[in-house]
Amino acid sequence: MVKDFYGELQLGILGGGQLGRMLIQEAINFNVNIHVLDPDKNAPCRKLCNHFECGSLSDYDTVYNFGKELDMITIEIEKVNVDALEALEEEGVLVYPQSRVIRLIQDKGLQKQFFKQNGIPTPAFQFISNKESLKSANLSIPYVQKLRRDGYDGKGVKMIRTEADLDNAFNEPSIIEEIVDFEKEIAVIVARNDRGEVKTFPMVEMEFNPEANLVEFLISPSTYSFEIQQKAEELTKKIANDLQIVGLLAVEMFLTKEGEILVNELAPRPHNSGHQTIEGNFTSQFGQHLRAIFNLPLGDTSARTNAVMINLLGEEGYEGLAKYEGVEEVLAIEGVYVHLYGKKYTKPFRKMGHVCIIHADREVAISNARKVQKILKVIA
Amino acid sequence: MVKDFYGELQLGILGGGQLGRMLIQEAINFNVNIHVLDPDKNAPCRKLCNHFECGSLSDYDTVYNFGKELDMITIEIEKVNVDALEALEEEGVLVYPQSRVIRLIQDKGLQKQFFKQNGIPTPAFQFISNKESLKSANLSIPYVQKLRRDGYDGKGVKMIRTEADLDNAFNEPSIIEEIVDFEKEIAVIVARNDRGEVKTFPMVEMEFNPEANLVEFLISPSTYSFEIQQKAEELTKKIANDLQIVGLLAVEMFLTKEGEILVNELAPRPHNSGHQTIEGNFTSQFGQHLRAIFNLPLGDTSARTNAVMINLLGEEGYEGLAKYEGVEEVLAIEGVYVHLYGKKYTKPFRKMGHVCIIHADREVAISNARKVQKILKVIA
Repeated sequence: MVKDFYGELQLGILGGGQLGRMLIQEAINFNVNIHVLDPDKNAPCRKLCNHFECGSLSDYDTVYNFGKELDMITIEIEKVNVDALEALEEEGVLVYPQSRVIRLIQDKGLQKQFFKQNGIPTPAFQFISNKESLKSANLSIPYVQKLRRDGYDGKGVKMIRTEADLDNAFNEPSIIEEIVDFEKEIAVIVARNDRGEVKTFPMVEMEFNPEANLVEFLISPSTYSFEIQQKAEELTKKIANDLQIVGLLAVEMFLTKEGEILVNELAPRPHNSGHQTIEGNFTSQFGQHLRAIFNLPLGDTSARTNAVMINLLGEEGYEGLAKYEGVEEVLAIEGVYVHLYGKKYTKPFRKMGHVCIIHADREVAISNARKVQKILKVIA
Repeated sequence: MVKDFYGELQLGILGGGQLGRMLIQEAINFNVNIHVLDPDKNAPCRKLCNHFECGSLSDYDTVYNFGKELDMITIEIEKVNVDALEALEEEGVLVYPQSRVIRLIQDKGLQKQFFKQNGIPTPAFQFISNKESLKSANLSIPYVQKLRRDGYDGKGVKMIRTEADLDNAFNEPSIIEEIVDFEKEIAVIVARNDRGEVKTFPMVEMEFNPEANLVEFLISPSTYSFEIQQKAEELTKKIANDLQIVGLLAVEMFLTKEGEILVNELAPRPHNSGHQTIEGNFTSQFGQHLRAIFNLPLGDTSARTNAVMINLLGEEGYEGLAKYEGVEEVLAIEGVYVHLYGKKYTKPFRKMGHVCIIHADREVAISNARKVQKILKVIA
């Protein structure tokens, strides 16, 4: 433990969105003082912390000044000013995950190099400096182009399916990557604390909404074979150890039709693919992140039951002050837990909340989740 | 549901202590705006709400002005100005539990009369107006004297064991009550919403710390016979229906050695005997209270596993800025959940937090709880 900090520790969170909000729900149990920096004056965390500061996460001075009186800083979004975090680390502020880890993960190119250097299987890729250089690429169409920086939730990603798509390609530093004909997208969340203890959550299976390019449906635990699950979990542990990260790391992977596992992307923080741990596992990802950064013993990650997580996205065709339809009806279904994120405004596909559906029978959990998906809507 | 309130509802909580704090942890999922009134400027809720007001809960104007712009008010402590709540109700503010229920429960004498009128078994009692009238009491010594108003956590209660104790008896309106030679103290929490749906949590068994007169150890679910559990739960439902309460009601009872159940006291709010529901049951008492006051379908109250709850009390001999010993060590034990209440100052027997210990094996849960009790200390 960093010190006998309870009641005294000043913990800063860069980002005040839903991940910060759920982290605060858990941090309340630890009796720490929470400070939040977010550019949105209506951020979901604004009323749930000791100190809320409205300001840019990308601006050196803003991040530095926010952090300089704090004991510890963590993030709920990667797009933050890493130079400021590095300066704070040098001055003795504990930054978890470490600035070097955030710097690596901010750049999909550096991520890919890291995978290559450490023998971590990942889809074939190539660096691209601008649109022109796509024409002489080694990878053949179709492939996916990803901006090296600032992509999230499907933004900064383009499918290049035909020669014609090249005209609309990104003209910025990017990578192109082979399209994996995968069987399933899977994810494992791992935590590592400063004494080197490493623990994974059970592997989960994800269903994407292809239109929004967001996880919309997630099932825990997986029913794939022990071998596959173990392989995914061991690979995830290896990455956490190679990075020597302190905190949570979410690893998104492709399970190919041949049973191969390829690492897609990393997120060094609580992640959408771990929301079901709140009701579904003995320790939630948020509780685990706090244990990891406070250098406490990591908690039991086992599944307590079957859990399906669905994102509650802003309905298409609605933009404005958020209203919720069907909450009452879904709460009448056994094992349904609704988490609203406290966002004032909705727009199509905006993450407005999530729902966790648990049941001792996996098929019932899935069919209840489908019911919830039909009933619950965010409109304006 | 009162209205399509999500994001708009202004909910006031009278009291900003640990019960309010855990209620807020859960209310975050419902996206409501929380307002808290508490006389302590360091109250545990002060940094976790949209609006915190420091002021007296007993003062008419303070409570009335706090509530008049709100949609709904609930309480986490009974000692509040009920006249103000009644006025607010008349002006259309939803007050749950209703002011008449709070008024009844504030007065142990009215509570006893209510039990008598409704055929609810309770220990024999007598009204006492002052110390003098004790001498001509019908009940014979030993008995327990309880102030009619403002007692809580063992305060306002005196054991009259001998004639000599009469000198130190309360000189205020009170009741005297036979001492029940009970087998066990038990409790059932029930919720009722405005459409009349009523649901109980499973009966729990309590172990008191005789010195502090506080629950210090609680086991859920009970291992008493189905008949006893059913009797306790049916009695609790009857009380909720007789009161027509909206919200949670905790009913503390004595189970006598003859298997009889006598109602001891009511609390119309989340209660210390329900903290283990957070990790131990499918719905927590806090989530259930919110479902009830929002007139949503009540949640599944079943136990997920065996849960032991222990109060974390300020250690004897320490007073001042709170420090916590042993948190790291107890978090290394599987199934241990520490909840610190964010109180700045400790004093002997002050409730500083609680710990929930869950395990599939009841005996392991109990023995782990005993370990936690030995290790975890709040000092200054």
